[in-house]
Amino acid sequence: MLGVCYYPEHWPEQIWARDAQRMRDLGLTYVRIGEFAWGRLEKSEGQFTWEWMDRAIDTLGEAGLKVVLGTPTATPPKWLCEKYPDILPVDTHTGQRRDFGSRRHYDFSSETYLVQAERISAAMAQRYGSHLHVAGWQTDNELCCHDTTQSASPAARDAFRIWCAERYGTVEALNAAWGNVFWSMEYDSFDQIELPFFTVCETNPAHRLAFRRFASDQVVRFHDVMIAAIRAHAGEGQWVTHNIIPPATTGVDNAGLTRGLDFVSYDNYPLGFSDQLMARAPASDWQPFMRTGHPDLAALNFDSVRGLSKGAWWVMEQQPGPVNWAPHNPRPAPGMIRHWTLQAFAHGAACVAYFRWRQVPFAQEQMHAGLLRPDDQRAPAWPEVEQVVREMALLGDLSAVSEKAPVALLVDPASAWVDDIERQGAGYRYPAVVFQYYGALRALGLDVDILPAGDVPLDGYKLIVAPTLAMPDETTVGTLRASDGLLLFGPRSGAKTQEFSISDGLPPGPLREFVPVKVIAVETLRPDCTGGLHYQGEHFESGRWRETIEAGDTEIVATYEDGAPAAIRSGRSTYIATLTDDAFLKSVLVRLCAEANIPVTPLPPTLRLRRRGDLSFAFNLSDESTHAPASEDAEFVIGGRQIEPFGVAVWRSAAI
Amino acid sequence: MLGVCYYPEHWPEQIWARDAQRMRDLGLTYVRIGEFAWGRLEKSEGQFTWEWMDRAIDTLGEAGLKVVLGTPTATPPKWLCEKYPDILPVDTHTGQRRDFGSRRHYDFSSETYLVQAERISAAMAQRYGSHLHVAGWQTDNELCCHDTTQSASPAARDAFRIWCAERYGTVEALNAAWGNVFWSMEYDSFDQIELPFFTVCETNPAHRLAFRRFASDQVVRFHDVMIAAIRAHAGEGQWVTHNIIPPATTGVDNAGLTRGLDFVSYDNYPLGFSDQLMARAPASDWQPFMRTGHPDLAALNFDSVRGLSKGAWWVMEQQPGPVNWAPHNPRPAPGMIRHWTLQAFAHGAACVAYFRWRQVPFAQEQMHAGLLRPDDQRAPAWPEVEQVVREMALLGDLSAVSEKAPVALLVDPASAWVDDIERQGAGYRYPAVVFQYYGALRALGLDVDILPAGDVPLDGYKLIVAPTLAMPDETTVGTLRASDGLLLFGPRSGAKTQEFSISDGLPPGPLREFVPVKVIAVETLRPDCTGGLHYQGEHFESGRWRETIEAGDTEIVATYEDGAPAAIRSGRSTYIATLTDDAFLKSVLVRLCAEANIPVTPLPPTLRLRRRGDLSFAFNLSDESTHAPASEDAEFVIGGRQIEPFGVAVWRSAAI
Amino acid sequence: MLGVCYYPEHWPEQIWARDAQRMRDLGLTYVRIGEFAWGRLEKSEGQFTWEWMDRAIDTLGEAGLKVVLGTPTATPPKWLCEKYPDILPVDTHTGQRRDFGSRRHYDFSSETYLVQAERISAAMAQRYGSHLHVAGWQTDNELCCHDTTQSASPAARDAFRIWCAERYGTVEALNAAWGNVFWSMEYDSFDQIELPFFTVCETNPAHRLAFRRFASDQVVRFHDVMIAAIRAHAGEGQWVTHNIIPPATTGVDNAGLTRGLDFVSYDNYPLGFSDQLMARAPASDWQPFMRTGHPDLAALNFDSVRGLSKGAWWVMEQQPGPVNWAPHNPRPAPGMIRHWTLQAFAHGAACVAYFRWRQVPFAQEQMHAGLLRPDDQRAPAWPEVEQVVREMALLGDLSAVSEKAPVALLVDPASAWVDDIERQGAGYRYPAVVFQYYGALRALGLDVDILPAGDVPLDGYKLIVAPTLAMPDETTVGTLRASDGLLLFGPRSGAKTQEFSISDGLPPGPLREFVPVKVIAVETLRPDCTGGLHYQGEHFESGRWRETIEAGDTEIVATYEDGAPAAIRSGRSTYIATLTDDAFLKSVLVRLCAEANIPVTPLPPTLRLRRRGDLSFAFNLSDESTHAPASEDAEFVIGGRQIEPFGVAVWRSAAI
Ligand SMILES: [Zn+2]
Ligand SMILES: [Zn+2]
Ligand SMILES: [Zn+2]
Repeated sequence: MLGVCYYPEHWPEQIWARDAQRMRDLGLTYVRIGEFAWGRLEKSEGQFTWEWMDRAIDTLGEAGLKVVLGTPTATPPKWLCEKYPDILPVDTHTGQRRDFGSRRHYDFSSETYLVQAERISAAMAQRYGSHLHVAGWQTDNELCCHDTTQSASPAARDAFRIWCAERYGTVEALNAAWGNVFWSMEYDSFDQIELPFFTVCETNPAHRLAFRRFASDQVVRFHDVMIAAIRAHAGEGQWVTHNIIPPATTGVDNAGLTRGLDFVSYDNYPLGFSDQLMARAPASDWQPFMRTGHPDLAALNFDSVRGLSKGAWWVMEQQPGPVNWAPHNPRPAPGMIRHWTLQAFAHGAACVAYFRWRQVPFAQEQMHAGLLRPDDQRAPAWPEVEQVVREMALLGDLSAVSEKAPVALLVDPASAWVDDIERQGAGYRYPAVVFQYYGALRALGLDVDILPAGDVPLDGYKLIVAPTLAMPDETTVGTLRASDGLLLFGPRSGAKTQEFSISDGLPPGPLREFVPVKVIAVETLRPDCTGGLHYQGEHFESGRWRETIEAGDTEIVATYEDGAPAAIRSGRSTYIATLTDDAFLKSVLVRLCAEANIPVTPLPPTLRLRRRGDLSFAFNLSDESTHAPASEDAEFVIGGRQIEPFGVAVWRSAAI
Repeated sequence: MLGVCYYPEHWPEQIWARDAQRMRDLGLTYVRIGEFAWGRLEKSEGQFTWEWMDRAIDTLGEAGLKVVLGTPTATPPKWLCEKYPDILPVDTHTGQRRDFGSRRHYDFSSETYLVQAERISAAMAQRYGSHLHVAGWQTDNELCCHDTTQSASPAARDAFRIWCAERYGTVEALNAAWGNVFWSMEYDSFDQIELPFFTVCETNPAHRLAFRRFASDQVVRFHDVMIAAIRAHAGEGQWVTHNIIPPATTGVDNAGLTRGLDFVSYDNYPLGFSDQLMARAPASDWQPFMRTGHPDLAALNFDSVRGLSKGAWWVMEQQPGPVNWAPHNPRPAPGMIRHWTLQAFAHGAACVAYFRWRQVPFAQEQMHAGLLRPDDQRAPAWPEVEQVVREMALLGDLSAVSEKAPVALLVDPASAWVDDIERQGAGYRYPAVVFQYYGALRALGLDVDILPAGDVPLDGYKLIVAPTLAMPDETTVGTLRASDGLLLFGPRSGAKTQEFSISDGLPPGPLREFVPVKVIAVETLRPDCTGGLHYQGEHFESGRWRETIEAGDTEIVATYEDGAPAAIRSGRSTYIATLTDDAFLKSVLVRLCAEANIPVTPLPPTLRLRRRGDLSFAFNLSDESTHAPASEDAEFVIGGRQIEPFGVAVWRSAAI
Repeated sequence: MLGVCYYPEHWPEQIWARDAQRMRDLGLTYVRIGEFAWGRLEKSEGQFTWEWMDRAIDTLGEAGLKVVLGTPTATPPKWLCEKYPDILPVDTHTGQRRDFGSRRHYDFSSETYLVQAERISAAMAQRYGSHLHVAGWQTDNELCCHDTTQSASPAARDAFRIWCAERYGTVEALNAAWGNVFWSMEYDSFDQIELPFFTVCETNPAHRLAFRRFASDQVVRFHDVMIAAIRAHAGEGQWVTHNIIPPATTGVDNAGLTRGLDFVSYDNYPLGFSDQLMARAPASDWQPFMRTGHPDLAALNFDSVRGLSKGAWWVMEQQPGPVNWAPHNPRPAPGMIRHWTLQAFAHGAACVAYFRWRQVPFAQEQMHAGLLRPDDQRAPAWPEVEQVVREMALLGDLSAVSEKAPVALLVDPASAWVDDIERQGAGYRYPAVVFQYYGALRALGLDVDILPAGDVPLDGYKLIVAPTLAMPDETTVGTLRASDGLLLFGPRSGAKTQEFSISDGLPPGPLREFVPVKVIAVETLRPDCTGGLHYQGEHFESGRWRETIEAGDTEIVATYEDGAPAAIRSGRSTYIATLTDDAFLKSVLVRLCAEANIPVTPLPPTLRLRRRGDLSFAFNLSDESTHAPASEDAEFVIGGRQIEPFGVAVWRSAAI
């Protein structure tokens, strides 16, 4: 199904009905409204003005659209900020208050704001919880965007002290857990604990980890209260979702954040995210993808969100043309709106909603394209959406289809925190490590389930890839133990205890039952200074992060240039003790897939595959047509064996 | 005429007379003194010590020099800052007070400082307004230098609220004008409006635009009060000027700022400005010009200042050797002091004053060269000034000569604000766009009048070039309508309404009467990722900013690589919908000049031409001699047909 | 002798004895403990808990180790910061307080902290001043690390005013000395003087110089009080030292700082320092040295520390493996721990202590290697230390050997301040200039004494090299006058008076008695834009900093590309008026050494020499073996004529 994001308050009421009719005529099912509208819904505390919203929902619903209603807590209005200035967050880099005037100007630790946000959410749910046309709810908007997870406010400090007291019980236990004896950092009471900012040099990594955990917990706490406020009044059939931004960018435990939702939504901006991702890539690498996005970036986020969701997931915002917020904002290549939409469905989406209906001519996002231009004419995306509507009919009902991929890839907020906190080498970045492993899998034509490490069962996966489990907890180790597939671990695995010490008995610590080695040293290198890697008689590159390991009784799979072990095998587990070039990763994966009976299809950089049920999707990111890697018996549902530039082909077949 | 900047308070009184005599002997006419001397003129509030200044002026005047007297408001003394700490500005990036200890430490919105600055200016004008030797006045010094146009002070905030109330009348009108319904940014009263800093993400561009306009207005208001304070007491023949820095660098409406002056002055530092301009240029591009400055940069500023002035204009400060403030400070190539001086006269200057007489051995500018060395010996610039004195005599009286150039180029503070506020693509920068168009004109040997868009008549120009009129107002549109030359518009034309919305009916909005197209999308690209441009059967490059246009009934002049229109022609107007390479711009300009009967002289990068009256000037920026592009009948006044390295030739002829 | 750094408070008391025995068995003599332990020694003001420290010292001493006891003033505990918050420093860039949570969180100007720090130091010295096993004392730890020399606190401001009053007597004298008449910066009283931060543009360089001197004086004052507190109670045989960081990085007068010590110690981290030094070097330059460190960097610091010490000096912390704090942290190449240790002895060290005994698994430095791994097993450095122990025995007693090198190289904190304050060209950096001259000497196989300019006699040196004496005082000039060797001065010599004005009669000012020229202009160039340099018929490069000189009657040694003098000779003095390429420097030095009868041994980049007594040491930084440049009669003590990769050879011979 398809939908669109709409802001009736931005437009004269007399055009609402026509807008609604055109949405319906285009073939859209859902329309998201309401988030950001607090200022128009409550003029001062308790003085509500629901009437316009009533009329907007009625107008949309009567046109046959289902409404997704957003709670407006991302934008507390000015009167609220004036009345309760303690809701404002504080910048952790400068110590300056982050004021009203844009969005997300609230502190997740503010008890005041928690009350206010719950109040408006509950009020809205009370009013529309039984509304016929309201299909479901979106909490807030893009939680943690704009670096808002952490705040250096007094509210955060006070809450952190309580959090510490609850976690550690006694300050002596905290001192011991953090190793505060180092540099005389011991505390006499919880009230002495400050936020880990504005010190002379780096603070204790355990201190920072605790604050990262706390900050994540505060976001989850806030979000859980919002969900509960809605559920308390929402009707039976109304679901609750939230539109997250790329999961690796917020520093939040996404599994916790989304646990209370019916399903998870994602805001998909392939071009802007790719421009940021490849900001330092040479032009020759970037130019082929500047109008398509990096071939694996949207897919990574799709697969991540599917892993978080309780089943099918949504794209709540789909880029429909150039956006306004990246350093450079190209137009999508012709066909890419359709391409991205079908790609989302291939990766398991239940609905794709475009952001936004009509390009708004004023304020911050006026250069962000819509399905309609500011002059109400059809924007370039329009005919592509029409095409998708036709093609969705050909694909049939996808809603029930959600089988497992052959490969699971584990992600983990704690590993990201470890990397953020302990920058042992500038060339190791958690998101890049995950992305490299994911890209190698995708370049082999594999479907991948991206799962949050933790209490997610791993049985049934033929291959489980953990590029970086730096701080695995007992639950994660338990799911690995209970799994039955081949295991592949990347470097830095099991590096730290839960309190940010070096793992007992050296890394990989609790993963030693799978990887019986000891990491006795780590060296980090400048990205442009690499060493060798020997594997199967071929030469590859090892760089950025290189561990010296005692390999014990394990089988040496690859060696460094000096013959020391760089990758080992033990039972069903493979451990790669260094970051490598892509070629090495693919080479290792090809062998593991062969062993696991997972068929691979090596692909050029501009072609990607994805299966859903008995459908195979092929996505051509090239400006030249290409051949679909379909078997002889393939019956094409969309497109054909020759895929047009930027095109998509979908077929049914027994074999690949 | 020539002059020099002098600070008698820096030197023992006993050498003043000798200094004056040497100035006179060198052939100088004017001597500028006084700015920065507040601390020596008023020891505490109302306790004036004019006597030394009396003696200094007398000494200079009696030697036959005319004095330009600067009011010292750029450097309020310490006692004043202590007595009135509310005069100090606040940094808009950090929120920190900008303290006493350097210069320009005052807030344009401080009513206190306005009173104090008016008081000292009036007192000075009272004392010297009828002084025989005082020829004229300079207000303050380099207003807005050091990023001082904007301040985040309480004074600025309070004044901004009043400014908003005056501009918009009601807060509802302001909310509507800015589109504050977006993100619940609506205000209930003007007292709620904060400065657009220190928020979570970007503020409303309309909010920032209003603050930029306000900040510019505050500078103009301050300056107008200073001018009035002087005029209230100045003698009949005394004029008032101000020495501006490069006009595109301050964020101020220069036309407004200079409106009350008799003429405008400019401080010319070709090497330092070029080092900054070309900081990221490869060495092979920069090295040829590191000791001459970029061939078009000083000229751009000269032509800009001439466009602001009421006729002839001045160079109030001319670099006489290495300066102290750029990242790198080369010595000028031999002959460049003379070269730059003659260049200023070629571009219409009435006087060039060197900064400074003698290099001062102490304080901030001790590494800034003068005409004399710190040891009182003649610096390398000295003989070049002697040469200029002799050559000025050959040129005759230039004061009456100020005919129009064939080409007008429009500049516009609002367009610069649009670009600063809406960075849709990192590769689009207002100053660079203007500079590229200007450079293309100059490389064709053309004289150019640079005019501020607005109430400046454009009739009589054969070609009017508007590289970027992003937010043209009715007055500007009126002058274009009343003009009779060919029109050339660059991309982003008419992009925005006066309140920073997308233009009605899409861009170019109010310029559609000239350019009847619609800009339906904009894409911005990384500077190193370009697309094609086809024009007259040749291939050029299009990049950084590319618009998709509906060309309607217009003639397609050039196309993108995919055949879509990239430049169009309608009546006398040409519209280029993208930034391009230099070659394309020159190619278009050559055709337009042919059509407009403007002769062009394509020049190598190291040669530039300029006419004044019946004199043609050629400037050789190369370290090799070159041929002057003079007609057969040329009578050389300075130099000859072969121009020496870094040299200048001046000739009279009927043809070019 | 060898030692190790140990933190008994980090480990269970039951393993102390075993640790001590293993240290002894390894062959270590000294063990440093105590710095950072304040929190465990004093639980609240006056409540001391010496007992554990008593037991630790006893345990170590009874194992036969000599204890070096550090006073813990680098880490005031939390209770002290809460009780006396005025001890905290203020960041000079942001104005923000630098809080508890890491280390060095105290202000050198805080009288409160001076009292507290003296109190704990004295208390510790009282308790252990007569302890049998305590051989000596280390004050604090790495003073001025983490950019702590300067603080923008109220305490610093108040103390600076007093310092100014003491230095200048009257505010009129200060105004005159600083040239405050410039920009109306004159003060009416010392109480008006603020710190030179947070102004609109740059402050008076004389103001900044005064503050740099003051800040250095405050550090020295603090340190002198600490030394005195220890000496007041320390036993006869107990010495006092301090472990400094690379001398050129702190902005402190190292001669003053170390004057009260018995000898000076240094913390040697060749890889981390080199990674920072060469951060922008191309990979091809950096990769050969990423696991050895730059061939001249550790040596530069060794020779600098020897110049400050009263004789033999110590390495108090020697990197034993990868560290944790550089942008990239490679492992040392095999053999480098031994290599660096022998190198320190070759450069005159009396003891090398490794940091640290056992890698600590928690807190900030958990990724910093030790001699033992966190799991108590021997780290890779261990066998290299065993080898050094054996080899030290072969070398015999070195303690008495400290003869002069043939070449002296002068360093100078004031020259560093001049460069920091007056960045006339981004390509001139004091540390890089010194390093280039030092590197040229070392590449010729020369031993070099690095001496602080000032009251250090220079007689007996055959060649005295002063790469940058920008602000020489009378004492320095006197030592040069009293010297008898050849003199070589680099550019910027004698540029400034003691109050940061241009030298009287132009530079080189007070050095004109040696170099009778006048520097009439300075140009600074982008590092990638150079000019020519002609010397002995060969072409070299001149760049970054180029002076125009009046050479007077001197002999022109080298010329710029335009024939102007670039280097001159007068009597025994050579002056190079520009920065140059390395080849030119070496060429000049070869000739001067020939004239001075100093034998040179031109070396490849990966080989370095150093003599101590009759021993010659050769250090091979290459991963290939190389030939030792030993004479025929050499008797090898360590290694042989063929030096293994990363190896060392030591021999005795009459000739080189
Ligand atoms: Zn190899
Ligand atoms: Zn082409
Ligand atoms: Zn040459």
